[in-house]
Amino acid sequence: MLEDLKERVSRLNPDLDQYPPGTVTSGNISGRDPETNLVVITPSGLPHDQLTADNMVVVSLDGDVVEGGLKPSVDTATHLHVYRERSDLHGVVHTHSAHATAFAASGLSIPIILTAMADHFGGPIMVAPYAAVGGADIGRQIVEHLGDSSAILLKHHGLFTVGDSPEAAFKRAVIVEHMAKTCFLALQLGECEEIPDQEAARAHRRYQEQYGQRT
Amino acid sequence: MLEDLKERVSRLNPDLDQYPPGTVTSGNISGRDPETNLVVITPSGLPHDQLTADNMVVVSLDGDVVEGGLKPSVDTATHLHVYRERSDLHGVVHTHSAHATAFAASGLSIPIILTAMADHFGGPIMVAPYAAVGGADIGRQIVEHLGDSSAILLKHHGLFTVGDSPEAAFKRAVIVEHMAKTCFLALQLGECEEIPDQEAARAHRRYQEQYGQRT
Amino acid sequence: MLEDLKERVSRLNPDLDQYPPGTVTSGNISGRDPETNLVVITPSGLPHDQLTADNMVVVSLDGDVVEGGLKPSVDTATHLHVYRERSDLHGVVHTHSAHATAFAASGLSIPIILTAMADHFGGPIMVAPYAAVGGADIGRQIVEHLGDSSAILLKHHGLFTVGDSPEAAFKRAVIVEHMAKTCFLALQLGECEEIPDQEAARAHRRYQEQYGQRT
Amino acid sequence: MLEDLKERVSRLNPDLDQYPPGTVTSGNISGRDPETNLVVITPSGLPHDQLTADNMVVVSLDGDVVEGGLKPSVDTATHLHVYRERSDLHGVVHTHSAHATAFAASGLSIPIILTAMADHFGGPIMVAPYAAVGGADIGRQIVEHLGDSSAILLKHHGLFTVGDSPEAAFKRAVIVEHMAKTCFLALQLGECEEIPDQEAARAHRRYQEQYGQRT
Repeated sequence: MLEDLKERVSRLNPDLDQYPPGTVTSGNISGRDPETNLVVITPSGLPHDQLTADNMVVVSLDGDVVEGGLKPSVDTATHLHVYRERSDLHGVVHTHSAHATAFAASGLSIPIILTAMADHFGGPIMVAPYAAVGGADIGRQIVEHLGDSSAILLKHHGLFTVGDSPEAAFKRAVIVEHMAKTCFLALQLGECEEIPDQEAARAHRRYQEQYGQRT
Repeated sequence: MLEDLKERVSRLNPDLDQYPPGTVTSGNISGRDPETNLVVITPSGLPHDQLTADNMVVVSLDGDVVEGGLKPSVDTATHLHVYRERSDLHGVVHTHSAHATAFAASGLSIPIILTAMADHFGGPIMVAPYAAVGGADIGRQIVEHLGDSSAILLKHHGLFTVGDSPEAAFKRAVIVEHMAKTCFLALQLGECEEIPDQEAARAHRRYQEQYGQRT
Repeated sequence: MLEDLKERVSRLNPDLDQYPPGTVTSGNISGRDPETNLVVITPSGLPHDQLTADNMVVVSLDGDVVEGGLKPSVDTATHLHVYRERSDLHGVVHTHSAHATAFAASGLSIPIILTAMADHFGGPIMVAPYAAVGGADIGRQIVEHLGDSSAILLKHHGLFTVGDSPEAAFKRAVIVEHMAKTCFLALQLGECEEIPDQEAARAHRRYQEQYGQRT
Repeated sequence: MLEDLKERVSRLNPDLDQYPPGTVTSGNISGRDPETNLVVITPSGLPHDQLTADNMVVVSLDGDVVEGGLKPSVDTATHLHVYRERSDLHGVVHTHSAHATAFAASGLSIPIILTAMADHFGGPIMVAPYAAVGGADIGRQIVEHLGDSSAILLKHHGLFTVGDSPEAAFKRAVIVEHMAKTCFLALQLGECEEIPDQEAARAHRRYQEQYGQRT
């Protein structure tokens, strides 16, 4: 009796600490191929654990779907605007991760109070004004406010990170979320002194020159 | 010597960050079959990892157990009231997820400060007055205060979400908890501007029309 | 060259979000056998993932080790005092779970602002005064302040829960931690009204009579 | 078409609650061999899940790489300074764990309000002044401010713990993070009384003498 509905109800777990990853669909990721300028982007509204190479969508810089049976992300126009304006970038990541998005919701930048943030970003993570999803408005805000940085909050909305590959942009999104969490906690504990601009810039240079195995 | 008790004590892990999922039983989930109007609901007090299609309970809209060896959820009267009053709904989910329930405990609605919330709900998540568990009082509060929304907090208690399937209601519960967490963090950071009603409504319409692969 | 030290250093992960469970040893659990009055308790200082039936320690109510090659928990005197004074109890759990222990550190009781807390405990989770670990002082504070409840905070220290089995006490520890988290969040959001005593008592009775599959 | 880029984009999951462990590289761990005085340290910038015995770097106390194909941690000079000044230490761990680092970012010590902290550390976890990464400045701050303790925060930066083995230092880093979390929560709830110095010292002695299976 009603075997299918029973199976479906029993599979959902009301203990949300352990919710099935298949439920969440927010955020999107793209990479631009340096040779063809074509962009590979995640499809709209697919649960993250269903993303495979086969359901990625390939679009041109003008937004034409070149390959893929699914509709691309609703934020595709945003990614494409960034790629058109910034030929140095080959990866864009957008997330609603909780701590970064909390700063965005408050309209606050993430202050430069951590050496790790100086190392990775050289300064605060700025928040750009609100823009409606869908058209090129968000892309314009990103390009206008990003400057030399590689991460920007969008008011009421979430986080965008960029890089010379999708992996580089993704790593920055992970780091910004961890930093947003640490800064949130620090700001709750009391006033926090900022790291002086010059010292942050110095740490950023040193990090780029000396950290990791790239030399 | 006392082998059974030793085995039982050794199996419990006092590091609660890693508590066994079998401990938690709160929350409940149901789905209404569109053809028969029968409701499949989770049984009362069973650890979530023991829920299977076989121990789901089938009840009529009047509350008669039609099939199932276990007692249905103590919130069954609530689910049934919602289904009787709202023929458009085929899924109800109730959780005590920490962040959503914190707003409920404070008697506060979750303000509309995130685009994702505008997208999914078109406005704030309202909190309905306290009602005692067990009878139809909670169901009445839900129906009265839900309006066009698909999620409602109940003061001192927790979250109810609804949808045209149990999966749709469940996905909303997951999203509300993530939003409640983000809004909690944002409100700790300082005053948050709300997204204007009209803009929230526009985003909600656009989301329903354009997001995902449904077209 | 130094293969053993290399292996050991490489096994430790500085990303503490993913620390190996073998690191944590705090907290302890015991059960009293109803027939012999002997108590099975976890050994002192063993990582939780190394606990097995074989390394549990069996002690008499007077504290003599009856079986087991390891030293029992440093809190053994506390557990035994509780069992001697309360013949109705057959399980004691002690944890330092973060949210419950935060209330203990602040010297604050967890207020009765959630229906789930009324259901499970019928009132607030009280905090008993500080007592030094090791002797029977903590046991005396527990017995004196526990009253009809089954969970008590100890100032500066952590949480003790009791029950008619180790599993019942353990389930309560999990529930208290989840409630402490929810109440913490609610108290940060603003003033919270308490559920009136009479209503909390009514909910507690109903829960004991109607919840779950025990009838 | 663009199979490699599709594969790479699809592998990144914008739901950061479930980010791949391979993304995070911060923190470092070392151990000194008691016989040769050589130090085994983690390489610079490698994702934690790629650390193996084979890619550990062996350095002399003067900083010469004795074995290993990779560049050692950028904090190597710090670890070596500590080992040179403190012949009793054979393990150093550095992390950016969120709660400990939040106290560091605020320039605040972690107050002694928990018995577990008295047990493990005998007093507060102090914060040393800011020093730039790279040279011996951080090492000097650690040695100067560590005193009898085995954990120290560095302003704007993070946590350093020490011990007579890498495992002992690592366990302390895990415990400091858990305590920093609990203390953070407690301080949000209200004013917290500190445990008196004498009582903290007594608990610390008792813990060293009686806890665990070492006797």
